[in-house]
Amino acid sequence: MRALEDLVSLLTKLPGIGRKSALRMTYHLLKADQRYADALAQRIASLQAEVRFCSVCGSYTETDPCPVCDGADRDRRIICVVEQPQDVLTIEASREYKGLYHVLGGLLSPLDGIGPDKLRIASLVQRIRAGGVEEIVLATNPTVEGDTTALYIRKVLEKEGVRVTRLATGIPVGGDLEYADRLTLARSFHGRMPL
Amino acid sequence: MRALEDLVSLLTKLPGIGRKSALRMTYHLLKADQRYADALAQRIASLQAEVRFCSVCGSYTETDPCPVCDGADRDRRIICVVEQPQDVLTIEASREYKGLYHVLGGLLSPLDGIGPDKLRIASLVQRIRAGGVEEIVLATNPTVEGDTTALYIRKVLEKEGVRVTRLATGIPVGGDLEYADRLTLARSFHGRMPL
Repeated sequence: MRALEDLVSLLTKLPGIGRKSALRMTYHLLKADQRYADALAQRIASLQAEVRFCSVCGSYTETDPCPVCDGADRDRRIICVVEQPQDVLTIEASREYKGLYHVLGGLLSPLDGIGPDKLRIASLVQRIRAGGVEEIVLATNPTVEGDTTALYIRKVLEKEGVRVTRLATGIPVGGDLEYADRLTLARSFHGRMPL
Repeated sequence: MRALEDLVSLLTKLPGIGRKSALRMTYHLLKADQRYADALAQRIASLQAEVRFCSVCGSYTETDPCPVCDGADRDRRIICVVEQPQDVLTIEASREYKGLYHVLGGLLSPLDGIGPDKLRIASLVQRIRAGGVEEIVLATNPTVEGDTTALYIRKVLEKEGVRVTRLATGIPVGGDLEYADRLTLARSFHGRMPL
């Protein structure tokens, strides 16, 4: 059946969805309330029109500037630098951080042709020079690219007179020494704290 | 963000999709080609209008009767009885079976108030009485409800003069005796075949 097969093949293009999952979803949609299917379809079609990028920090937003950049309750002395717009949502969900954000839009990766000019680094420097910023927290992932990008930004910001910090790397809460890889363990020793 | 959260909560209603998967799918849709999002939305909205039930066998179809019921190359002497419309697609995908189908639309389950009158059993008897059918293969799942339903149908068909068979139960191909449960092992002994 074409209608069914077409939907299955479109669904398998989504991340983490194989043919079996796509079939299950399709069968579910066949039996679901048509109003649910319509609502889902409408949301998928209109998503990109409703969600844009904040012109200040580069994160996803429905209003520009975004509620964080525009928030009266945010600490404007600290900017957390992340790779992708969704990282902002992940950190916001933790309710741990009350400063501002800056989305790079990627990580340095010379092999893929992604140099510093492809990332939103110049606009970060501009925001710092506009004044009031005291600390930059580099929150790129603790991977080769994430570390390289963090080191590069630290170097760029050397003369800007801001404190540059990096999120702690170590054994996750609830984790197990036995299952920690060598590098994580080494970093957790390196970053050990007085108790 | 409402647009984003609304889509995530609609996606988590799909089977096997948790919040994390829904978020990944949503982020993917945010970055995807808008034409892809439109195609997906359109397929989801129109699925139920395009896919109907075959008036003969009860399986999913875009034409009535379905291509199987209408197929010149199908063996009309044998009808495979399944629980759900999707079971027909699963069996068709195996390319092993060349007969016709009959979808029950459920399984007997007195506790849920599903008696024989809720299933498409009367129309099965009608198809047999119309003539030409020699064998009924009961392909309901080997579960308590599937077995009960199979036994009930065998009883109903006792006086109809057709051979009633049941799909073999046993250790799956590539399976391991060690991991077979007691009931599967018992059934595989019961159904042993000369080699």
